[in-house]
Amino acid sequence: MDEAAVAPNCLQGVRVLDLSQFEAGPTCTEVLAQLGAEVVKVENPKGGEPGRILGTGPKPGADAYYFMIYNANKKSVTVNLKSPRGLALVREMAAKADVFIENMAPGTIEKLGLGWDELHRINPRLIYAQVKGFGDGSPYEHSLAFDMIAQAAGGNMAITGEAGRRPVRPGPTLGDTGTGMLMAISILAALYQRVTTGKGRRLQVAMQDAQLNYTRGAFVNHARTGKPVVRGGGGFGPPVPPSDIFPCKPGGPNDWIYVFNSHNNPEHWRRMVKVMGRPELADDPDYVDRNKRLEHADEINAMVTAWTQLHTKHDAMKILGDAGIPAGAVFDTGDLLAEPSFESRGIIQRQHHPNGELRMPTFPVRFDGKPPKIAPAPLLGQHTTEVFGSWLGLDEKDVQGLKDDGVI
Amino acid sequence: MDEAAVAPNCLQGVRVLDLSQFEAGPTCTEVLAQLGAEVVKVENPKGGEPGRILGTGPKPGADAYYFMIYNANKKSVTVNLKSPRGLALVREMAAKADVFIENMAPGTIEKLGLGWDELHRINPRLIYAQVKGFGDGSPYEHSLAFDMIAQAAGGNMAITGEAGRRPVRPGPTLGDTGTGMLMAISILAALYQRVTTGKGRRLQVAMQDAQLNYTRGAFVNHARTGKPVVRGGGGFGPPVPPSDIFPCKPGGPNDWIYVFNSHNNPEHWRRMVKVMGRPELADDPDYVDRNKRLEHADEINAMVTAWTQLHTKHDAMKILGDAGIPAGAVFDTGDLLAEPSFESRGIIQRQHHPNGELRMPTFPVRFDGKPPKIAPAPLLGQHTTEVFGSWLGLDEKDVQGLKDDGVI
Repeated sequence: MDEAAVAPNCLQGVRVLDLSQFEAGPTCTEVLAQLGAEVVKVENPKGGEPGRILGTGPKPGADAYYFMIYNANKKSVTVNLKSPRGLALVREMAAKADVFIENMAPGTIEKLGLGWDELHRINPRLIYAQVKGFGDGSPYEHSLAFDMIAQAAGGNMAITGEAGRRPVRPGPTLGDTGTGMLMAISILAALYQRVTTGKGRRLQVAMQDAQLNYTRGAFVNHARTGKPVVRGGGGFGPPVPPSDIFPCKPGGPNDWIYVFNSHNNPEHWRRMVKVMGRPELADDPDYVDRNKRLEHADEINAMVTAWTQLHTKHDAMKILGDAGIPAGAVFDTGDLLAEPSFESRGIIQRQHHPNGELRMPTFPVRFDGKPPKIAPAPLLGQHTTEVFGSWLGLDEKDVQGLKDDGVI
Repeated sequence: MDEAAVAPNCLQGVRVLDLSQFEAGPTCTEVLAQLGAEVVKVENPKGGEPGRILGTGPKPGADAYYFMIYNANKKSVTVNLKSPRGLALVREMAAKADVFIENMAPGTIEKLGLGWDELHRINPRLIYAQVKGFGDGSPYEHSLAFDMIAQAAGGNMAITGEAGRRPVRPGPTLGDTGTGMLMAISILAALYQRVTTGKGRRLQVAMQDAQLNYTRGAFVNHARTGKPVVRGGGGFGPPVPPSDIFPCKPGGPNDWIYVFNSHNNPEHWRRMVKVMGRPELADDPDYVDRNKRLEHADEINAMVTAWTQLHTKHDAMKILGDAGIPAGAVFDTGDLLAEPSFESRGIIQRQHHPNGELRMPTFPVRFDGKPPKIAPAPLLGQHTTEVFGSWLGLDEKDVQGLKDDGVI
């Protein structure tokens, strides 16, 4: 239901010149667009940014779902960056922009003459943002990176996986989206500062470095023990049971539920035994104490498993939640898309794109009660005439001339 | 090296009244503090926020490492929220603040008389931010949440784990820190908007909803196939090989490397076979084509394994990276803490706390070349006199009187 969402308009009047591609840069500019900035993607006239063809879309030959999901609410212009006049156009746009962002391979943007020094000289108010795989001065600074490379080298995989088995890649794309979110924070802080100082700033983030922000729990553990975390499926170290994923009816691949009894709150255990029909264990000193419970881990996990296996994950989550026990069913995209409250609350919306529809999550923070409304991702060059008109004062004839000359 | 970091000062003059605890709220206010805001934690005079005693710290009885890592650069005052005069003090502070944030159990803040309606009436410029486990209107809106509950119910666990095996909790604390980062974006956007409008906004995020922002890759996959993702250890679906984690010398639990050959870029494969000493396969039509390579998956994975097993993960990453092949060693906290460039670049810093030292990652974005400098987490009530003086004009005698009366 679209009425569940609104335009928060926080960034009205902010112009973002967006030369980013794939996911790490585009997720950053997408949230800026959803919060009200005018984000203009600058794309190759021949096919656009490579994310447009990453996998299939709503119909053959159309933009990919991948592109649609990471580029909602933006505009698109085409510019041929191999043409000197095209590059001059980008520089003219940079002179009018508030924010510039790119995530090309190391060194590429400088070779194009669009590096920090050059654009800062043209527009000292410009906030200049770069996303790379590895930081300047890192042993890997010239290496390529993708989401999984950052997740491996940034510490995420080492702490993800079952006990005694190989590391696993976390499914959420922290290497990309996780990095994009940290850059969005930084751009907004620099924008706020510019209100007072009138000056832009140079912002740089490496995908590897960004992962460390999300794995700080493992650094806490390392400080405590002097050693890296040992993988355990449900969490770190030997947790006080129950604190793990338990199987549910009818036993499908995602029929599981996470059940957690805080070791700091014995009430969780007292509520748990009532639900499981074992009230005599509520104040049994062999169980209510967290250290004792750890000694009985196998027995307790078997007891919880016997109970969860009698219920579907949805039922189990409702029963445990209502009883005041922290529990989370392992929901997959099918479960999430089937839960009507996500749509009634505006968290999952329909992107009404000319090529077809996509049901997707929006930026999930509510502004005065409602999250940002999703607008369609742009078709390649859809806003070329509009943006060159409003940013640079070009008329339709000018734009046609640039097209005829292969500049855009 | 502390000279590797600076104070970015973006949020100078911004006052944050912080009633949050544990991780989801504190990670949000920590980045605001590192970017220059004055973040004041309001804590229970008896022991402070519960994160202070979560696990061990540098010495017995001192604040936990957990607290130190998520509360750097902040200030602390004590207020007894069970005292009517204490609550009145918090309301006086809210009248002077720019941002208010809390992440208590559902309904608690309203019962204290510190809900949106009340504080918005006192200070219409106040940006009022709340983090909960589940959204208002969700079937689970009254349920408790912790990081793992949000990661289960928000879709992260269903897409994490080995092929044919149980779901796994991603090690990075996306349920907490991931949510906190999205709230930081929203607070900064609202602050920017307030420069023009003069009005505060009400911001709310649910930890479950926030996870959907990080799992959008799985929604792309669902749109393509109509089905939830099938877990595969290294990624989604059947990837074109090599795209997985491979074992390295000497075979320890974290001696692995992620090797990725993009299916869109045949050069990766051509470079890979050269490194492995099989140059004859570079243009073999049975291998260079991505679909053909998928048919030979087992054989290719065995070939890559034979090569990676001859090298340490550090050597393998260097060799592959230098050859232009995307590769990321599975680094654990031991590897990351041992890599000197993180310290020379200011990404990992030493928190010089009166109770002892903690080596920890900072917010990883560089502002004009350097990331934010870490200052110690506050001792309980360390800034009570200072803050009540500068915010409310109280003198030392006033503060002592409040202490004697059990108000603070």
